[in-house]
Amino acid sequence: MPPDVVTMDKIVSLTKRRGFVFPSSEIYGGLGSSYDYGHYGVLLKNNVKDQWWRAMLQERDDIVALDSAIIQHPTTWKASGHLEGFTDPLVDCRTCKLRFRADKLEDSQCGRKPSKHPGETPECDLTEAREFNLMFETTIGPVKEEGSTVYLRPETAQGIFLNFRNYLQFSRKKPPFGIAQIGKSFRNEITTGNFIFRTREFEQMELEYFVPPEEAEQWFQTWLSARMDWYTRLGIRADHLRLRAHDAEELSHYSSATSDVEYLFPIGWSELEGIAYRGDFDLTQHSRYSGQKLEYVDSVAGRRYVPHVIEPSAGVDRTMLAFLVDAYDEDELEDEKRTVLRLHPSIAPIKVAVLPLVRKDGQPELASGVYRELRELVQAEYDEGGTIGRRYRRQDEIGTPWAVTIDHQTLEDRTVTLRDRDSIAQDRIAIDALGEEIERRLRAPWRSPKLGASP
Amino acid sequence: MPPDVVTMDKIVSLTKRRGFVFPSSEIYGGLGSSYDYGHYGVLLKNNVKDQWWRAMLQERDDIVALDSAIIQHPTTWKASGHLEGFTDPLVDCRTCKLRFRADKLEDSQCGRKPSKHPGETPECDLTEAREFNLMFETTIGPVKEEGSTVYLRPETAQGIFLNFRNYLQFSRKKPPFGIAQIGKSFRNEITTGNFIFRTREFEQMELEYFVPPEEAEQWFQTWLSARMDWYTRLGIRADHLRLRAHDAEELSHYSSATSDVEYLFPIGWSELEGIAYRGDFDLTQHSRYSGQKLEYVDSVAGRRYVPHVIEPSAGVDRTMLAFLVDAYDEDELEDEKRTVLRLHPSIAPIKVAVLPLVRKDGQPELASGVYRELRELVQAEYDEGGTIGRRYRRQDEIGTPWAVTIDHQTLEDRTVTLRDRDSIAQDRIAIDALGEEIERRLRAPWRSPKLGASP
Repeated sequence: MPPDVVTMDKIVSLTKRRGFVFPSSEIYGGLGSSYDYGHYGVLLKNNVKDQWWRAMLQERDDIVALDSAIIQHPTTWKASGHLEGFTDPLVDCRTCKLRFRADKLEDSQCGRKPSKHPGETPECDLTEAREFNLMFETTIGPVKEEGSTVYLRPETAQGIFLNFRNYLQFSRKKPPFGIAQIGKSFRNEITTGNFIFRTREFEQMELEYFVPPEEAEQWFQTWLSARMDWYTRLGIRADHLRLRAHDAEELSHYSSATSDVEYLFPIGWSELEGIAYRGDFDLTQHSRYSGQKLEYVDSVAGRRYVPHVIEPSAGVDRTMLAFLVDAYDEDELEDEKRTVLRLHPSIAPIKVAVLPLVRKDGQPELASGVYRELRELVQAEYDEGGTIGRRYRRQDEIGTPWAVTIDHQTLEDRTVTLRDRDSIAQDRIAIDALGEEIERRLRAPWRSPKLGASP
Repeated sequence: MPPDVVTMDKIVSLTKRRGFVFPSSEIYGGLGSSYDYGHYGVLLKNNVKDQWWRAMLQERDDIVALDSAIIQHPTTWKASGHLEGFTDPLVDCRTCKLRFRADKLEDSQCGRKPSKHPGETPECDLTEAREFNLMFETTIGPVKEEGSTVYLRPETAQGIFLNFRNYLQFSRKKPPFGIAQIGKSFRNEITTGNFIFRTREFEQMELEYFVPPEEAEQWFQTWLSARMDWYTRLGIRADHLRLRAHDAEELSHYSSATSDVEYLFPIGWSELEGIAYRGDFDLTQHSRYSGQKLEYVDSVAGRRYVPHVIEPSAGVDRTMLAFLVDAYDEDELEDEKRTVLRLHPSIAPIKVAVLPLVRKDGQPELASGVYRELRELVQAEYDEGGTIGRRYRRQDEIGTPWAVTIDHQTLEDRTVTLRDRDSIAQDRIAIDALGEEIERRLRAPWRSPKLGASP
């Protein structure tokens, strides 16, 4: 394998070493496929979510936001079909006492052989498959009693459908319009793994876009391309992205067309986002279970209808993972190996680092002042520890697009060097012009240098 | 009661009418003290969280961020004391079948009389009090079996203590330094209420600030004043805020000093944020249960110690409520009653509204263009429906600080009026200067006009 191939191990190692991601509850032995985001991880994740909100809310006027509760009325899951159908078939082994997904025996991590290849190893003695619901169950109110069972939502989408009427009434919107939500969801899956790609607790960015039925096909296509654009605008290389339409067997019962945005992860092409045409399934179901009309009355055209729904549904955690993988690069600089995250500046955790060349001659004091001014504008970092080369490498590894260095000349003419992470070009610039220059660069278009010649 | 007194009813009514807050799962009859945030509510809440992150991460260099999982290893709650001690004493009534907090019988909403005032009404026949744990319990993995019981975290704080070692190791921090986190927590309380003031599912903004033991008292005082400053800088009136020190009986077992930041809500002075001196309780407990050393080795001073902790812990939802209450105002404009949210511009959901004076003469087209330019910079809104007066009122009600109006003159000289929500002053300004002017105003200091003469 060539050294510049991005492996999951390299990503796991970098993100732990630099404090992006830690295994959860590690001091108690961990909790299995559960992760905590450290400092740079939080900053990166917040930036990813901000960019999604920006694309949904700030840059358009047909989408409004929602943040609904994680614990909803349990009838929600009867109506949505989750209570009955959101299950995996599981089998137990009478010998090794482990539990497997009956439909994914080949993928199991068991030392024995839970598959049906006899003779090779001591075999598992499997029970018949039973269906297990993937929703986390809990009890509301202090005592377990009838009627108090509730569920942690397995998707944020249903909270949107429950509020559809409120939005027609109070937000003055009419189809085509969308309701967007970011929040945690929970799925009690037995098969998790691949780092933050699939975890039981995860964060979703979901849009439910309501349209007149006859416009559904057109809007489905529009959203496919809008979502692909979002990833490429934020620096994901187009040849690492593809759309894959579900075939008939793969489609959910509520969907007549679904396409996945897939990214070329180290584990292969995998789903980054699902874009589903859900028809009127959800509104019709909730209307049936609630006894309330969930329809749009078009008084101008003199008709009423249940809007159809296009749902672009992305995972925050795996979107972060895709950004990290796509940004990861290794090159050589001054005969030394360099690891660099070529993140789009708008999602980079730290926008600018301020570094005194040496820790004397008044340079740290001057650098502190520059840092204090810049942090009014953007997330900045001050670092005076170690050689300048080592400090550049550290910022390269966390994806900081620019570094300001205060040196001997700064004390004479109040200019600094502004170093670019990707080109490693250094421009000499006046301290007083720094803020404006960094804001200008942040707003400028950006293109991954991995697309062209390496620097 | 004078008409300009802010009541909870007025806040509930405005926030529903304008789509800030809806009762959760309403189409299924609701879920009791559970709320969903609508469009403007999400924008306001995101802004509140952004301002907290800004104060914690961007404006200082001694605090790093964390986002830990909601479901943590169950030993966490043994070590923290929650499994044993996080309980309420409850009594059941054998007659009416309701359940009450034994220590808050007076506050109950029962039609009968669950208190000990005999004779007035048919009395409840109460059982002895029993202790019920407030943590939501669930099962990880698909089948309920021994060892798989886990809890939804009742506070975000413990996730920070569990990661303390990671941060010493990977973030190159040493005491005094802090770890900050925003996230959902869950408490299965029987007594909820007062709108979004107390709900079972809520969002916290918590900082654990680790200090050398001998500096604890000084840092406790520093954080008291830093947190008070944060609220007043964002426009909360100083005379609606106070610090109240817990007396000896009120203190938690782990704390030797706690002060609440209290706000004058319509329900009276109530806790907005608790600032607790937790000593070394948490790190010591987790060290005991995990068998790992949770201490700082100060190689320069040649000593090792368990840092002491100062914890400013705020609720996102009740902070939002305080901002809404404090901003709510009613005045008269052109002989008409006006409701206005005098929110600090930095937390206002919409920064600028763009309105054509009339829906003809090319004004909507010109206004659309202005709107499209401004939304590149800030969250903006375009509105052409209804009289201009009505559209101003609508923006006043959601707290939009500025409105741009495109009128006849605009078509001649490309100037617009820029209306200020608080002073209702209208400045004539060139379209080309608008973006810069709005960014300038957003960065300028702001002071609630409710402090001075009303406009």
